[in-house]
Amino acid sequence: MSVQIRLTQGPLATWPDTPYAQGSGARIVFDGVVRPTEDGEKIQGLHYEAYRPMAEQQLEIIGQELLETHGLIAMDIEHSIGLVPNYKCSFRLVIDSKHRKEGLAAMDEFINRLKQDVPIWKSAK
Amino acid sequence: MSVQIRLTQGPLATWPDTPYAQGSGARIVFDGVVRPTEDGEKIQGLHYEAYRPMAEQQLEIIGQELLETHGLIAMDIEHSIGLVPNYKCSFRLVIDSKHRKEGLAAMDEFINRLKQDVPIWKSAK
Repeated sequence: MSVQIRLTQGPLATWPDTPYAQGSGARIVFDGVVRPTEDGEKIQGLHYEAYRPMAEQQLEIIGQELLETHGLIAMDIEHSIGLVPNYKCSFRLVIDSKHRKEGLAAMDEFINRLKQDVPIWKSAK
Repeated sequence: MSVQIRLTQGPLATWPDTPYAQGSGARIVFDGVVRPTEDGEKIQGLHYEAYRPMAEQQLEIIGQELLETHGLIAMDIEHSIGLVPNYKCSFRLVIDSKHRKEGLAAMDEFINRLKQDVPIWKSAK
């Protein structure tokens, strides 16, 4: 069981398609993509700022908690900081689990908690 | 809005990481991976057989229906036929949607319907 966390400058690169974790029967990958409008206004991209030590700590806490409560095998979390242009990926969550049900549930829960509990702020550019 | 379907001989290759569909704010990729036990017995892999014309038609019907009911942007569905060794991918579903909620809901529903309504059978090898 492992949780990996990275805060990365700028847009996230293509998913490197790592080997499935041992015991995995379901891998689910979520890419959050910047859309060209925010609150109805056209934008060029989103700029993310993080209070970095706390953001990393919170991501780790949430990841470990969901890993245990949902019985997941592995979780890989990557979030952009800085400018991410439209149509680029700013957040990626990869979950390996035995079956799909717990992976899908954990994915939804993680993203809710990310928005509530992690000090990463976005502003339109 | 589009639904792509492929039945592929043997294990599925690495996801080619196609560009996000226009308007996508969330891409979710599900990989179903063959595990080395089936009903408690060690196996070498799973062999999939399909009644091909009906399987393709059903996948198309389910895909189109979910695209419309959940308001998705695009769906790409690939399923193995023939032998898939342990630890390899035998099914992949890629959903592009505006937001994550409808993508996650459609993914769960699609996989349930795949198991119920699509004439693809597996046997342990």
